[in-house]
Amino acid sequence: MEKINGGVTAPSGFLAAGVNVGIKNTEKDDMAMVYSTVPARAAGVFTTNLVKAAPVKWDQKLVRESPFLQAVIINSGIANAATGEEGMRCCIETARAAGEALGIPETAVAVASTGVIGKQLPMEKLTAGAKALKETLGTGREKAREAAVAIMTTDTKPKETALTVTIGGKKVTIGGMCKGSGMIHPNMCTMLCFITTDAAVSGEMLQKALSLNVQETFNMISVDGDTSTNDTVLVFANGLAGNPEIMAEGEDYALFCEALLSVMRELARMIAGDGEGCTCLFTGRVIGAADKAQAKTIARSVICSSLTKAAIFGHDANVGRILCAMGYSGADFDPDVVDITLESSAGSLRVVENGVPTDYDEEKATEILSREEVIAVMDLKAGNEEAEAWGCDLTYDYVRINGDYRS
Amino acid sequence: MEKINGGVTAPSGFLAAGVNVGIKNTEKDDMAMVYSTVPARAAGVFTTNLVKAAPVKWDQKLVRESPFLQAVIINSGIANAATGEEGMRCCIETARAAGEALGIPETAVAVASTGVIGKQLPMEKLTAGAKALKETLGTGREKAREAAVAIMTTDTKPKETALTVTIGGKKVTIGGMCKGSGMIHPNMCTMLCFITTDAAVSGEMLQKALSLNVQETFNMISVDGDTSTNDTVLVFANGLAGNPEIMAEGEDYALFCEALLSVMRELARMIAGDGEGCTCLFTGRVIGAADKAQAKTIARSVICSSLTKAAIFGHDANVGRILCAMGYSGADFDPDVVDITLESSAGSLRVVENGVPTDYDEEKATEILSREEVIAVMDLKAGNEEAEAWGCDLTYDYVRINGDYRS
Repeated sequence: MEKINGGVTAPSGFLAAGVNVGIKNTEKDDMAMVYSTVPARAAGVFTTNLVKAAPVKWDQKLVRESPFLQAVIINSGIANAATGEEGMRCCIETARAAGEALGIPETAVAVASTGVIGKQLPMEKLTAGAKALKETLGTGREKAREAAVAIMTTDTKPKETALTVTIGGKKVTIGGMCKGSGMIHPNMCTMLCFITTDAAVSGEMLQKALSLNVQETFNMISVDGDTSTNDTVLVFANGLAGNPEIMAEGEDYALFCEALLSVMRELARMIAGDGEGCTCLFTGRVIGAADKAQAKTIARSVICSSLTKAAIFGHDANVGRILCAMGYSGADFDPDVVDITLESSAGSLRVVENGVPTDYDEEKATEILSREEVIAVMDLKAGNEEAEAWGCDLTYDYVRINGDYRS
Repeated sequence: MEKINGGVTAPSGFLAAGVNVGIKNTEKDDMAMVYSTVPARAAGVFTTNLVKAAPVKWDQKLVRESPFLQAVIINSGIANAATGEEGMRCCIETARAAGEALGIPETAVAVASTGVIGKQLPMEKLTAGAKALKETLGTGREKAREAAVAIMTTDTKPKETALTVTIGGKKVTIGGMCKGSGMIHPNMCTMLCFITTDAAVSGEMLQKALSLNVQETFNMISVDGDTSTNDTVLVFANGLAGNPEIMAEGEDYALFCEALLSVMRELARMIAGDGEGCTCLFTGRVIGAADKAQAKTIARSVICSSLTKAAIFGHDANVGRILCAMGYSGADFDPDVVDITLESSAGSLRVVENGVPTDYDEEKATEILSREEVIAVMDLKAGNEEAEAWGCDLTYDYVRINGDYRS
């Protein structure tokens, strides 16, 4: 498995583009398209929020009913959620416009939206955007980046990754892009994430690998505890790598699943590390757990704690808050044996031993907490299971961004 | 039932005091005591956090095993949580010092602490404080206020209430005080709350009324989603009102329970409305619910949403966020029929009708959102059940207070 510099256009046969159609009245591109030159198997996971955006409903239907998909068209600025029947009409019209431009059926075109809830889409702009996107589709590094930028809302940087792995004697490539960065507390998946691969894999095994990996990646991040109405992760696999099609579990499936996990893990960490207003990626790592579920529950609880997140922002080793968040997580453990160690590129410091804070050096702690990624390692001393969850600090800018989002 | 101006000293036979012993190195009083001149029945509810402060464990044991309690001694500044065996020794020593000063057994003295987690208490200061408190105990309005101020941490104002109600032909008085204002997401009860009454009521019926009412009051507030290690609600009933002792359900119990609910509801609202850094009390009211549990789940979810709270701070009627938080609450309902109305002293405005935002006047919405209490009324149109939950807005000051709490 080798990491490469690239995004959604890295695998063979995938084109991408971004354009500005003026949904947000800024100069940033606000529509993107990813297109496979041949029909691709597709799998998806979607928000569990009862209030689902129109494109989420559309994509759920496609993934269930269409044997192949070939494109996804995305807009940022408006979420097309809480928009009733008119919103669903707009969504289908967008798929149709893209299908017409690309010469493929509308039922091969997934749709995704992100932005403000409760506003209707400016339909003429989206129709024009579909045509413009078709005209500028291309392969190569720059085109992947263009699409990754176009789907951003409050994200401060585009989020892309790619890798290659040899499966069945063939070089398989997987690429992906995603966007955050508020309303991030995925439950089944996160805001928007699109993964492309030239692997040959059946729809069933693709969905299986995706659903499994989501539990360890996008379901383990949180920016603000709010589960979006639009969360969508879509994977397209067009088979152009020429490996023997993965139809069942086995060595090839395991290799593919691990590579997909690596891509999803990296994208998930990028979302957490670029949470709205945040200054650092905050990783909660539970070790020595009796079982995996316990480890995950505690790791998630700690990275979700507003008080812990504010303390991280203040570079304050307020370890009592970490202990507190572990305690209310709902997981059963013995608080009196817990060790906690803070880690970052500035070093490592044991701050809690057997449930009681040590006499640690506050200056050293502050130095550790001042880096771009901060890790709290929590040892439960109850077994050998581990889990990681990713969040970020809580800052003035989070309040600024969300106190004044629509204006 | 009549509201009166008073606090924990309003019922007959209750004395209170506050003193400064220098736990926090400020001039504000940081120790308090409430004392009943005669032994009182007591009931309590406590945090469900697995990490429990030493005084929580002590009080749980007392409420279970002691037939009567007569005093509670409280310190602010240090929570005495995550302090191991030394912390438990300090707690018991505090009860003993208070018991010696008052001439009562240590097992009649409840203890409560609030403040930083993971620090040991300065024991000599607490012992001296117990004696000083005994010396200054007194009845009357000012003494209740003194105690209510002494238990404050980041609270901006003391929180007290009192009322009278006629039960069994006698005037019964109930008074209470409590403190917030961060780490507030009670599960069984909230930070610290002390209620006194001269009603004659059995320990069993007192606990029953308390446990029932907690579900509708302290368990329906949230400031920041963090369930504290110290949450404690204690009620003392000394029987001096002379009403026939309430030993079973019936008319007298119903009257008492309703009066207690009124006191607890008011104190809970005070905690939410004085949440760390907040500028307003944010009430979520669900009406037209199919069942009570559904109504409560949705109301709680909305007042806990960081994005909604930030929007309230910005006086921005970002109603999509309310819909979103309803949707991920976990309760089942039909999003396509929901109506939402925003209310405050500035008026009332229908902002969502049948799941879709109305074409409401943004200026009017901003005016409504600029008041001290803002209410979001959510009509599910599925039945006749209702519930309320109370929270506050998310502000720069919340981040400031908690990014820099210990320094």
